[in-house]
Amino acid sequence: MREHPTKRSSAAGGPSRRSIGLGVIGLGTVGASTVRVLLEHQREIERRLGCKLDLKAVCSRRIESLDLSWLRGRVKNIKVTPDWRHVVRDSEVDVVVELVGNLEAARAIALTALAGGKHLVTANKQLVAEHGLELVGQSQRAGAGLGIEACVAGGTPVLHAIREGLAGEHFTSVLGILNGTTNYILTEMEDRASTFADALAEAQQRGYAEPDPTADVEGHDARYKIAILAMLCFGAAVPVAEIPAEGIGAIDPVDFAYAHRLNRTIRLIAAAERAAGRRLRVSVRPVMIPRTALLASVRGATNGVLLVGDKGGNTMITGRGAGGDPTAVAVLSDVIEIARDVLSGAAGATPLGYTAWHAARLAPLGRQVAPFYLRLVVRDRPGIIARVSGILARHRINIDAVLQEPGQSKSALPFVLTLEPARQEHVARAVREIARLKVLAQPPLVMPFLE
Amino acid sequence: MREHPTKRSSAAGGPSRRSIGLGVIGLGTVGASTVRVLLEHQREIERRLGCKLDLKAVCSRRIESLDLSWLRGRVKNIKVTPDWRHVVRDSEVDVVVELVGNLEAARAIALTALAGGKHLVTANKQLVAEHGLELVGQSQRAGAGLGIEACVAGGTPVLHAIREGLAGEHFTSVLGILNGTTNYILTEMEDRASTFADALAEAQQRGYAEPDPTADVEGHDARYKIAILAMLCFGAAVPVAEIPAEGIGAIDPVDFAYAHRLNRTIRLIAAAERAAGRRLRVSVRPVMIPRTALLASVRGATNGVLLVGDKGGNTMITGRGAGGDPTAVAVLSDVIEIARDVLSGAAGATPLGYTAWHAARLAPLGRQVAPFYLRLVVRDRPGIIARVSGILARHRINIDAVLQEPGQSKSALPFVLTLEPARQEHVARAVREIARLKVLAQPPLVMPFLE
Repeated sequence: MREHPTKRSSAAGGPSRRSIGLGVIGLGTVGASTVRVLLEHQREIERRLGCKLDLKAVCSRRIESLDLSWLRGRVKNIKVTPDWRHVVRDSEVDVVVELVGNLEAARAIALTALAGGKHLVTANKQLVAEHGLELVGQSQRAGAGLGIEACVAGGTPVLHAIREGLAGEHFTSVLGILNGTTNYILTEMEDRASTFADALAEAQQRGYAEPDPTADVEGHDARYKIAILAMLCFGAAVPVAEIPAEGIGAIDPVDFAYAHRLNRTIRLIAAAERAAGRRLRVSVRPVMIPRTALLASVRGATNGVLLVGDKGGNTMITGRGAGGDPTAVAVLSDVIEIARDVLSGAAGATPLGYTAWHAARLAPLGRQVAPFYLRLVVRDRPGIIARVSGILARHRINIDAVLQEPGQSKSALPFVLTLEPARQEHVARAVREIARLKVLAQPPLVMPFLE
Repeated sequence: MREHPTKRSSAAGGPSRRSIGLGVIGLGTVGASTVRVLLEHQREIERRLGCKLDLKAVCSRRIESLDLSWLRGRVKNIKVTPDWRHVVRDSEVDVVVELVGNLEAARAIALTALAGGKHLVTANKQLVAEHGLELVGQSQRAGAGLGIEACVAGGTPVLHAIREGLAGEHFTSVLGILNGTTNYILTEMEDRASTFADALAEAQQRGYAEPDPTADVEGHDARYKIAILAMLCFGAAVPVAEIPAEGIGAIDPVDFAYAHRLNRTIRLIAAAERAAGRRLRVSVRPVMIPRTALLASVRGATNGVLLVGDKGGNTMITGRGAGGDPTAVAVLSDVIEIARDVLSGAAGATPLGYTAWHAARLAPLGRQVAPFYLRLVVRDRPGIIARVSGILARHRINIDAVLQEPGQSKSALPFVLTLEPARQEHVARAVREIARLKVLAQPPLVMPFLE
């Protein structure tokens, strides 16, 4: 690794370094966009930095099958390799941009790069959520920069906002719509009364959903992202596997009809908040929120994050959560910040905003008290409300209201109970009992009401 | 000035510096909040920094009349002075926080502090809008940090977003609701059909508007803020005095009634966008926007900024725009960032995100082509529409539609013409001619429709 100047020049705008070298590993959608946006914005970026930013090497396992003539035409002498080790060891490369999909490959690249004193930018949310503290430690030991903005909400600068723009805040909670696929599906169901299956097919056709949509639809993708947000908001490492996640597969257009009657809507909300005993309560689940709530205004394949602080109140950031170009903007923003630090000899100081970390203990979600929405679909039989309310009463859960949309089919009749505030675990126990009733045409659906 | 370490320690989390000293000048609403929030969040901030952050001195011209027992109780040996020079020269102070209201005093404090090698944080928007490049130059020469987050939209981290989180973006425009007072007044008029005068009185009673509301209501406050946003988005110094500003004093509840018929609403929008010939088009004016527009969701005394980039698309940040605590959060976030830079020996590298600046040339607003809303209030006389449309026709402006709300008084009858896209200067000329018609009971009101 070349020596970096350890003190910036004190002359106006005149850092002594001539250029910063970049290596990009992974040329999928995000990797290709990153290279293209870099070349397109290069002059403007260099005006910001007062220094050249040179793409020195690119790497892809399938490099043989890619047509890179456009790149070779634009960047003379660019090194092209199928082996990431060549990029990570390249003495001309200062910043390694890791954009491969595979977790184990990404981890090997990241740790090797940092150990070798390279600065690292990654868009791999799973890597950061599961191995974040390992990366932080490695980066601090090596005095190397670490950029992770692209891991959460694509082009939306939410991680920088937490770490820098709102660094003086004491966050009490962070809530987000962090998965564009599921938000697209939910707003399609809301606006067109599409079924979940139809809205998913539509999302797949438009390229918003993967052929195997499980990670999005079941909330696993959002789980990585809320773990990273919690990490930055609270300076705590969250055990991803322990975060309870519920998907949106059981939601039906009829739930939006009921939601609207209650002046609410449904969103898949990832949330992390401080709870008693210095714990964090973290979850991913569909929630009934007021139609006037800030997060209700996040529609379609976009992302939104609501940061709640004890002094500044609510700050909300919305934008495009995924896609090649927005993610490339996030990657390049990290590259620029690291380049600034390299120029001033300061890279790697406090990689993710804290110098001291602790392991988060999660508060059990079951203890949370909230009012609930319970939707049942039954074969039309008398006495069902009496039986359901009997079960709820035995669990000491009070019914607030019973709602029924008119004009439903007689063989699968949905109706809704709204429940007064109760512990989630008590509601879950009662609902398990209700689920065993033979008159149900579908499993019951339960969601909390949150403000 | 003490020597700062020029290289961070390479041991994990162990910077060699023990503490950073802070001096706060100005103890009004924001100054007092800054001190209080600092003391409240001090432990958390120090965990972020891995270093102590010590309040060493406070200064207020009216220090004799303030009860500072709460502060002396909390901070041993704090220096208290009515003379800012004592703070700026204090060898224990590393970062000067300038929170006085007066422009000339603020400028003297800022330049003296920077010249003496102190890092500076300011919340004075007029200072930064009018003397921004002077501050940048001084800070670069001295190798000192410069924090201005609190100048625009209080606790909303929009300046950091532009400079860091979205540094890789090429911005095409930035639009904002940057003045909470006028947005409160407009949404009151919208929701309760209040007159402008009543809504203003209500805002004054709630402390959202000053006794002399001119700077807010006429758009001058927003003008400073859009100049600063343009500076950071485009790396260009904007001549504040040349920004055309129009206030909201002529807007009537009836305009909201018409706006809603057109599925629109009215907001005071500050905008800066790239125009032909490397110019910027900058303005502050009330605008008719769709009710579904992102900025339409910004309601009450809050702020919202919409950043439009050519790669990442629309990013929107909303939050509390003013008030002691949110502004204090912004000030402290800057202090923390500067402290990080001090710890790593990097302060002052690229103060506002660019190493090279140019002077912006403004594109004349008159050349902008847009459809327009034209509201006239006339004494009920036949033939008025024929005369108005005759004038518009002579200026080659086409009428799209004529609207009239039913049930109005006969002596002051409002009606609205929507105009097809035309140059603003042509519309203005026609409207000046229309304004001379004797049948008008009030001056005409004209606003562009923008998407």
